[in-house]
Amino acid sequence: MAEIPIAPMARILRKANIDRVSDEAAAALRDVIEEYATEVAERAAKLARHAGRVTVKAEDIKLAK
Amino acid sequence: MAEIPIAPMARILRKANIDRVSDEAAAALRDVIEEYATEVAERAAKLARHAGRVTVKAEDIKLAK
Repeated sequence: MAEIPIAPMARILRKANIDRVSDEAAAALRDVIEEYATEVAERAAKLARHAGRVTVKAEDIKLAK
Repeated sequence: MAEIPIAPMARILRKANIDRVSDEAAAALRDVIEEYATEVAERAAKLARHAGRVTVKAEDIKLAK
């Protein structure tokens, strides 16, 4: 875990019109989306194999979300 | 969009045992999780207001995922 930096989380929260964010909230958002990214990556790998490929393409990611 | 850098996407994909990833796939993963992050942020803001707060806390993020 903790591959994604915290700073973009604060920008995403501000874009959602959230002005007051605790440090713990930004870290929690990072953890939540990193877990989701891992799930999507694992599904995308299965979809690529299902299509007879070893290379994961954008179409696998989009189908896996 | 495009707040999150691409490099962590490649690391997350490699952790999911994906060795061959197209550049487009890494960018697609970034887009997919950024969209998800925005949805979580918007739900978390509503949950904070529902709890009578203006500050978004980690518990709002976890409930919003």
